[in-house]
Amino acid sequence: MSPRELHLNINILHSGFSPAAWRMEGSDPRASFDVNHYINVARIAERGTFDAVFLADQAAISDRVDFRPLTSLEPTIVLALVAGHTERIGLIATASTTYNEPYNLARRFATLDHASGGRAGWNIVTSADLSQSRNFGLEKPVAHSSRYERAGEFTEIVKALWDSWEEDAFVGDAATGRFVDPAKVHAIAHRGKHFSVHGPHNIPRPPQGHPVLVQAGGSDDGRELAAEHAEAVFSASQSFEEALEYAADLRRRAGSFGRPPDSLLVLAGLATIIASTEAEARRRQEELRELIPLEYSLSRLAGVLQLDPKGLDLDAPLPDDIPLPADGGHTFFRATLALARRERLTVRGLIRALNGGTGHRTIVGTPRDVADDIERWFSARAADGFNLMPDVLPHGLEVFVDEVVPILRQRGLFRRQYTGRTLREHLGLARPANPYAAAAE
Amino acid sequence: MSPRELHLNINILHSGFSPAAWRMEGSDPRASFDVNHYINVARIAERGTFDAVFLADQAAISDRVDFRPLTSLEPTIVLALVAGHTERIGLIATASTTYNEPYNLARRFATLDHASGGRAGWNIVTSADLSQSRNFGLEKPVAHSSRYERAGEFTEIVKALWDSWEEDAFVGDAATGRFVDPAKVHAIAHRGKHFSVHGPHNIPRPPQGHPVLVQAGGSDDGRELAAEHAEAVFSASQSFEEALEYAADLRRRAGSFGRPPDSLLVLAGLATIIASTEAEARRRQEELRELIPLEYSLSRLAGVLQLDPKGLDLDAPLPDDIPLPADGGHTFFRATLALARRERLTVRGLIRALNGGTGHRTIVGTPRDVADDIERWFSARAADGFNLMPDVLPHGLEVFVDEVVPILRQRGLFRRQYTGRTLREHLGLARPANPYAAAAE
Repeated sequence: MSPRELHLNINILHSGFSPAAWRMEGSDPRASFDVNHYINVARIAERGTFDAVFLADQAAISDRVDFRPLTSLEPTIVLALVAGHTERIGLIATASTTYNEPYNLARRFATLDHASGGRAGWNIVTSADLSQSRNFGLEKPVAHSSRYERAGEFTEIVKALWDSWEEDAFVGDAATGRFVDPAKVHAIAHRGKHFSVHGPHNIPRPPQGHPVLVQAGGSDDGRELAAEHAEAVFSASQSFEEALEYAADLRRRAGSFGRPPDSLLVLAGLATIIASTEAEARRRQEELRELIPLEYSLSRLAGVLQLDPKGLDLDAPLPDDIPLPADGGHTFFRATLALARRERLTVRGLIRALNGGTGHRTIVGTPRDVADDIERWFSARAADGFNLMPDVLPHGLEVFVDEVVPILRQRGLFRRQYTGRTLREHLGLARPANPYAAAAE
Repeated sequence: MSPRELHLNINILHSGFSPAAWRMEGSDPRASFDVNHYINVARIAERGTFDAVFLADQAAISDRVDFRPLTSLEPTIVLALVAGHTERIGLIATASTTYNEPYNLARRFATLDHASGGRAGWNIVTSADLSQSRNFGLEKPVAHSSRYERAGEFTEIVKALWDSWEEDAFVGDAATGRFVDPAKVHAIAHRGKHFSVHGPHNIPRPPQGHPVLVQAGGSDDGRELAAEHAEAVFSASQSFEEALEYAADLRRRAGSFGRPPDSLLVLAGLATIIASTEAEARRRQEELRELIPLEYSLSRLAGVLQLDPKGLDLDAPLPDDIPLPADGGHTFFRATLALARRERLTVRGLIRALNGGTGHRTIVGTPRDVADDIERWFSARAADGFNLMPDVLPHGLEVFVDEVVPILRQRGLFRRQYTGRTLREHLGLARPANPYAAAAE
């Protein structure tokens, strides 16, 4: 078995992880709506031999758009542009199983995979919030368990569509006039609780077999979905111990689906504020904090915890009796609450600790500090890699690529150049066999 | 009023209009799945100062895929790649109102419009056939009238979402921290028969206000939809007289919606087989015909006419009693039947006349023949332009750009260079005012 390899994604969270990123000197306030910003960031990440760029998604406007950029350009289209301006880096787009149709989504990701020579990945999400449900005809969000049940069935269908063309179904023999061998293109004839999809797909099997399946399983249902289908999982662990436990739990669950442990990578969310000395990094952190309106931070925190912001006292700890949502609360609900309790923070202190974010772990320090932390987590298998969220983009990524990546390479942790062509190859993931080929053996 | 301008789109019908295009020498059989083919064709069209590239779409596999390429890569993603490799040419993608959600579709076209600097167009279609309905949970297609009713409501919602941001809603003032002025971003609160969509959109108003709305209204319902919403209409008229009548009818209908006649362009479908002499063009036509398996042509003809191919006698005329489908039959049903009756063709003769196609008019001749025909139609207002379908791509387009376009330019019919930046500017269409701006005046 080849040695484990560290994996790095760049999460292009519009202008950067900090809600104030767009206000920093050198930032273009329009960046989040400008496809050239995404292309530029992706090219820097490719220079740093990152595995992939990652785009989140939300089919609704944020209610805090008055203060900060939103994630809103449609990710598969943005990544198609990025594909045209890059050569190797993977392209992971988020798309919801709650408000899409599997046939349409299978086509979009197969198209992106063909168009990029096998660099596509799909981050499978369900959509929980009211603001999205109201854009799709519902007065309240779909219940948690039903959302995940639908997501599981949706994912099965998408995989079956990708597999509905055997590898050699395309013939393209000009002499005989045979374009496709219809005996090697199969209806999927799916009839399930949430969907009926006849198929077959109308695109040859994607270069990667399946675009890489990514998920961010936090809740119990989410972990089960990840364990069954995901090849990479984004985690939001705040502490090393939590991360170890999470990774072990996921591997155990994957095993119960008969999957080998190395078929599932854990990529931990990691926000960074980097400068050449720790003091300078702290100053930068303060500068960013100062630029985040308190009104924004308070409303965001209240939103994550599903509380009324007016009920929060800035100089007291969080109330003891915060009700756990019926669905167990999503990843950031639990992470935020855990952070507040563990560090015994006041609301103001919690807001400071979150840096305006929602619960992702943040390292503030020198390039060496960041590299040390990454090495520690990676070596102990608390993570197989990281979904990087620099404070400000592209600045924070440039610093990472120019100053952290060389250290990681020097320590033999990270690739010096790409050896593969596809995202699957970068991640060391096997190309899924076509079930029809297996059946014929 | 400025003089009328001729408009030209290239319909990138995979390897070309002829079903045998992929078999011709110099063709790459894989072209239809290769995004570089689309980019290459678009760049040639841009060299010829075409208004736009156009992509059809179908969310199902063709049942004749054994003989010819299918239209299957998802068009908005392909056109995003094309956008990244072109500067001026418009990008029109087909997307169905039958099996999409308006919020998702509004985002995709707004994203493409932002990413391309205002070059996007949406070809609004409804999906009628069983093969698509079965990929979306239905055992039979949605009824014609309900499909069009849904399409009308769908289009209203998409426009309202694009308009939900006022032009100056984006502030981006780093000094004050004001990113967006929430008072200028409006919920649409749509509650209709087919959809409830709350909004607002999560993307600033597209550069063109609205991406250009295109339609191919053939049936009565289709013409009404086109007359109400479309800014360019693709027609499939076989004869000059039919085209004149169609254009006049559409303008009359547009008037009844209170629209000025020049707010709606008619672009006629035009298949071409061009060579330096007429005899050579005829030889090329024969060569292509020979490469189309009769089995394919017969099954396609039977499909269009909704008949059993076994019931057709190659050497007799079409049966007299072909039943008119309940929905009136779509454009090609009527065009094909009209051609057979008018020219008193046998089934074999009809197949020959269709060149393996489904009823689009085909010119076989020299560059001058093609230019003459275009001038005649354009000058008489039988069409404002053409949706060009060369026999083989890119070859047929290269010939058109190098040999027909110069004649059209010499006659003062066609632009020598782009004067605008957006598709709307190429087409001479006004940018829609934002209704909130109008209300505030």
